[in-house]
Amino acid sequence: MFNMTRVQLRRGEEGRIKGGHPWVYRTEIETIYGTFEPGDIVTVEDHRGRFIGRGYINPASMITVRLLTYNRDEKIDKAFWRRRLAAAWDYRQRVLQGTRTDAYRIVFGEADFLPGLIVDKFGPYLVVQTLALGIDRFKDTLVEIVDELIQPAGIYERNDAPVRELEGLELRSGFLKGPFDPLVIIRENGLKFYVDLAGGQKTGYFLDQRENRAAIQPFVKGARVLDCFCHTGGFSLHAAHYGAREVLGLDISAEAIAVARRNAVLNGYGDLCFFEVANVFDALRELERREQRFDVVILDPPAFVKARRALEGAIRGYKEINLRAMKILAPGGFLVTCSCSYHMPEDLFLEVIRDAASDAHRRLRLLARRGQAPDHPVLLGYDESRYLKCLLLQVL
Amino acid sequence: MFNMTRVQLRRGEEGRIKGGHPWVYRTEIETIYGTFEPGDIVTVEDHRGRFIGRGYINPASMITVRLLTYNRDEKIDKAFWRRRLAAAWDYRQRVLQGTRTDAYRIVFGEADFLPGLIVDKFGPYLVVQTLALGIDRFKDTLVEIVDELIQPAGIYERNDAPVRELEGLELRSGFLKGPFDPLVIIRENGLKFYVDLAGGQKTGYFLDQRENRAAIQPFVKGARVLDCFCHTGGFSLHAAHYGAREVLGLDISAEAIAVARRNAVLNGYGDLCFFEVANVFDALRELERREQRFDVVILDPPAFVKARRALEGAIRGYKEINLRAMKILAPGGFLVTCSCSYHMPEDLFLEVIRDAASDAHRRLRLLARRGQAPDHPVLLGYDESRYLKCLLLQVL
Repeated sequence: MFNMTRVQLRRGEEGRIKGGHPWVYRTEIETIYGTFEPGDIVTVEDHRGRFIGRGYINPASMITVRLLTYNRDEKIDKAFWRRRLAAAWDYRQRVLQGTRTDAYRIVFGEADFLPGLIVDKFGPYLVVQTLALGIDRFKDTLVEIVDELIQPAGIYERNDAPVRELEGLELRSGFLKGPFDPLVIIRENGLKFYVDLAGGQKTGYFLDQRENRAAIQPFVKGARVLDCFCHTGGFSLHAAHYGAREVLGLDISAEAIAVARRNAVLNGYGDLCFFEVANVFDALRELERREQRFDVVILDPPAFVKARRALEGAIRGYKEINLRAMKILAPGGFLVTCSCSYHMPEDLFLEVIRDAASDAHRRLRLLARRGQAPDHPVLLGYDESRYLKCLLLQVL
Repeated sequence: MFNMTRVQLRRGEEGRIKGGHPWVYRTEIETIYGTFEPGDIVTVEDHRGRFIGRGYINPASMITVRLLTYNRDEKIDKAFWRRRLAAAWDYRQRVLQGTRTDAYRIVFGEADFLPGLIVDKFGPYLVVQTLALGIDRFKDTLVEIVDELIQPAGIYERNDAPVRELEGLELRSGFLKGPFDPLVIIRENGLKFYVDLAGGQKTGYFLDQRENRAAIQPFVKGARVLDCFCHTGGFSLHAAHYGAREVLGLDISAEAIAVARRNAVLNGYGDLCFFEVANVFDALRELERREQRFDVVILDPPAFVKARRALEGAIRGYKEINLRAMKILAPGGFLVTCSCSYHMPEDLFLEVIRDAASDAHRRLRLLARRGQAPDHPVLLGYDESRYLKCLLLQVL
């Protein structure tokens, strides 16, 4: 797959890429010298022909080249993939020790210098996604190495993410090593959770909030807790585990709520955690009307901003739920408020929260600004890898 | 001390103050109606005479009024101080549970709506600072309430901070309840540290890094660790405790290094932690020349920027130590880099670190952006309370 094809950038387009951003957009390319098949490894040069790096090409994608290496002498062969995957695995072994968890992201694509590849571990099983044509072509090799390195009990392919269509790839899912029962029980911070590896996002599990779930410990003891957009009960069960008096979890998805209820029973908190299928916007209004008060409110909504143009609507959405949360928070209560939209920078998010506090006539104290768990590291120079914000606030 | 004196602001000066900033600068005042003694409680109004809040006045200070309340009906009496102090104490009891520490800040001035007042707990003793004239006048009352509420074994006054001179206050220190041996042993994250309550900053202890010290746990196991500006060995001892192979601590202060060595012995790590009196800038250069390699480097320098005009020099200083740290870091090693200067915003700090990485030809992955411990909460609207940055980075 290695060839001599050279992708030359337009003058002035190399700054971001030399700064470490691994994507070459179609619009940044001046000329392509040589022939290639989609998915081939090509060399990227600046407008004067100076070497920048080497990556895989897909002319059908707006992101035409994704760089794999900046080292002129590094061959993209099996040893290369093994080095990259071993480094990713070693990093997780290091940063996750002591977290009492057996579910985490092993490969976070670009941030592990493996663009387009996601590998997650759920208990003894792995879930693999190859989200770009170039990495998809190496799938068999990658799966073989990962199998050798980690020796999972089974491997499941979840290549049904619509983003694959932008790469001209078909959607598919199924066993790569198995079969096995795809409804598994994972462990996180000493708790157990059902995760359906074959089911949709609604019954899966978000690994990036692991440490933020643990961070609520100091202020949930004895508290009445409201967990909005609770999904399968990640934050809710942590609140119960850390001594909450009562937990109410709300989510629009009936499937997620069904799993949340099973998770509560699985951990022995079935009599403490209550889950309801609800539109959170409506439910918050109703709780306010009924003069309900909570000591802790958690807001972990799905991405309101999937594209920059949707930002204004998203700001209104974030402001509304945060304002309503503040209105039902007891004086001195705690708000855990999240945004997982890359397009919502932390400063702007904090601005929206402050704006809500001003409308609610409440003062805010910031205890911590948190991000995604360290198995989803942020690669500086590749801002897309920095997406999760989680603010811990006291509302006075 | 309560009187009817009204401080009227100039037109357009009320925005920051209504947004929650508790200081009224001399230059923002249009007129003062009525008479007052320095330290009296006065009312602050906007230019149209509308009530904003009530606070204490010191005409000798650039910060002429510091607001205590925004509630027109709230009297500044003994019950007021008791409510404020009890809220501060309750908050610490809540957010610090489970940290295995007996040393923390109980009152963080403005962020606890008690401008100018600092109360720290070191084991069974309290240290009190009254840094403004208005709060100094209430010292006896405040100490009496704190003594009732917390029942410490002793109380020490550390009013030798030069900032008091800006308020026209004399510098002094001594026992308010005692005497007792001011060399105490505190506990933090399961470790023990000597703290000299009567000695200078050099032999004291910085409480605001408590949680950041604990956050190094995942990546110090088996590592060779360099702790720059190590003071009395806070980060060093944590590294040893979490399984470091070897720790070298450097600080310019011989007194601090002497205490650091005693702290190592106190915790049973005397054979694992080495401390040297050194100028960190020179020492980093020397370690590079001798081709020394570390798995983890910690940089916790004193405030390089004490005023905005010193920012450029500070940027050079931060860049240099970070660049040199990266040069002696093993590939894939970890950098813990801090700035405690309020005048150095996090984004700019991160920019400086990225600039250093670019010069060192290294890539950075950000594991976490941390701030000060939650007993030093950030009051939104009062940016001065947000000062400590601690970035956890992997250097590739």
